[in-house]
Amino acid sequence: MIKEIEFTKMHALGNDYIVINETEEEIIPEESKNKISKEISTRRFNVGADGVIFACKSDKADVRFRIFNSDGSEAQMCGNGIRCLAKYVYDKDIVKKETMKIETMEDIKEARLTVVDDNVEDIEIDMGKGFFIPEEIPAIAPSGDTTEFIDEEVDVEGEKVKMSAVSVGNPHAVCFTDINIDDIDLDFYGPRIETHEAFPEKVNVHFVNVLSPEEIDILTWERGAGFTYACGTGTTSCVLLGYKQGLLNEKVLAHLSGGDLNITVTDHSDYLTAVMKGAAFTVYEATMNIQI
Amino acid sequence: MIKEIEFTKMHALGNDYIVINETEEEIIPEESKNKISKEISTRRFNVGADGVIFACKSDKADVRFRIFNSDGSEAQMCGNGIRCLAKYVYDKDIVKKETMKIETMEDIKEARLTVVDDNVEDIEIDMGKGFFIPEEIPAIAPSGDTTEFIDEEVDVEGEKVKMSAVSVGNPHAVCFTDINIDDIDLDFYGPRIETHEAFPEKVNVHFVNVLSPEEIDILTWERGAGFTYACGTGTTSCVLLGYKQGLLNEKVLAHLSGGDLNITVTDHSDYLTAVMKGAAFTVYEATMNIQI
Repeated sequence: MIKEIEFTKMHALGNDYIVINETEEEIIPEESKNKISKEISTRRFNVGADGVIFACKSDKADVRFRIFNSDGSEAQMCGNGIRCLAKYVYDKDIVKKETMKIETMEDIKEARLTVVDDNVEDIEIDMGKGFFIPEEIPAIAPSGDTTEFIDEEVDVEGEKVKMSAVSVGNPHAVCFTDINIDDIDLDFYGPRIETHEAFPEKVNVHFVNVLSPEEIDILTWERGAGFTYACGTGTTSCVLLGYKQGLLNEKVLAHLSGGDLNITVTDHSDYLTAVMKGAAFTVYEATMNIQI
Repeated sequence: MIKEIEFTKMHALGNDYIVINETEEEIIPEESKNKISKEISTRRFNVGADGVIFACKSDKADVRFRIFNSDGSEAQMCGNGIRCLAKYVYDKDIVKKETMKIETMEDIKEARLTVVDDNVEDIEIDMGKGFFIPEEIPAIAPSGDTTEFIDEEVDVEGEKVKMSAVSVGNPHAVCFTDINIDDIDLDFYGPRIETHEAFPEKVNVHFVNVLSPEEIDILTWERGAGFTYACGTGTTSCVLLGYKQGLLNEKVLAHLSGGDLNITVTDHSDYLTAVMKGAAFTVYEATMNIQI
């Protein structure tokens, strides 16, 4: 059956999504969501995107966020994707609130929108807690330390690279460095750290230049994806670690390859949480025929 | 000024284009066409495409084809782009003819559409003449032959690669080979042949498996672009050379990485011409706001 569907194309820091409104009715049948998401995410031959976001009805929150990767699999959460969803439901008058609750597969997140002249300029999202215990990340500190994996030298094909590890739901290796990130050979270090034995479930890799205690530059290698313009959980991880190591203050402006994010850490003395603030953009509105 | 524009996203064998109708009025001001084309062709942060096609009014033909590359420069001709344009003007009732004349920067091309139940299944375009004289390509035959560059051994970093050269408006190096094209190291040979001293203005590179005198597989390295899913002039070149060398018949089905093309050669005894037939697809219809 050929069905005409409507969608909105959006991006946040260069992570781009096809957004479909299912708050009133199901547009893509549940059993076809994986297949259709993969199909329409294909670049060049179809719409092309990092994934498909569905805005759905929720019993527990203002709206429910579902996100399917470009390989068709459903993802738990995505910091850049959820900002797009928040802007989308506000702009479309689906949830006309500057503070809204969004149900995700992980939990219910609060999104706080900065709205100026009915224009959503920024969206702030709670990113939750940082986990530093190596077993919880999971990671294995070369020193054998089982309480944390901070500033350890890791052997990368004979070269010692200093790094720290943290999880905010997914594992991150963070290398604070004095070498300008523009001069880092990411294609060499990225895959070697990603698949290093210190990270049993592989790891996202970030090289960070501290410009001041409140400003950083980040270069990211994403687990399973390679170079990426922006990683919300990764940026959060870098700031949590920088704060823990005394390199950064609570409020940090991070410059990513795709744009800027603001991270604010809250210190609960026995644990740290973070919120992330950044923009999201609508590129176009479209209709297309799909075979269901 | 913010302006709302309409466009159609199309592709032909994976070469994708943003198509804008300027037959009734100018949508993008002439002085902004380069800048806006580059901007909206940007992947991830904007619509994303190989280029922007404008359907324009013509005094000499049914419609005028203009195409801007993703770097903003205007191109002379594009075999995959012009098929999209032909389908577009037919589907939109701008030119409801199964045989239409299309004005390009090169000349006026005839497009012949195969229409079944008002559905454009294929578009056939005249690709013009093949030029075999090395100076006209331009190319320098290693043997010093100034009449043709056919089946010559070219030294690629110590390895002898047999190839032939032809121009159909742009230069092509064609390597007929018994090695399965899936096993060719295109990243090695592509850039080295592209920039070889035998090709003073660089060259498009094609590796070809002859499956039968009427069927070939092609792997293409495009000048300035690298691996490409499909190259219309390249496919035409391969068939012209194959015909000239007695390897292929007049009618050939070519399998490219992005799909199939049919090439038909006409032998005028002192020169050869070719027509190309293939499909084009509409992906979606959209509206967007742009800053002009």
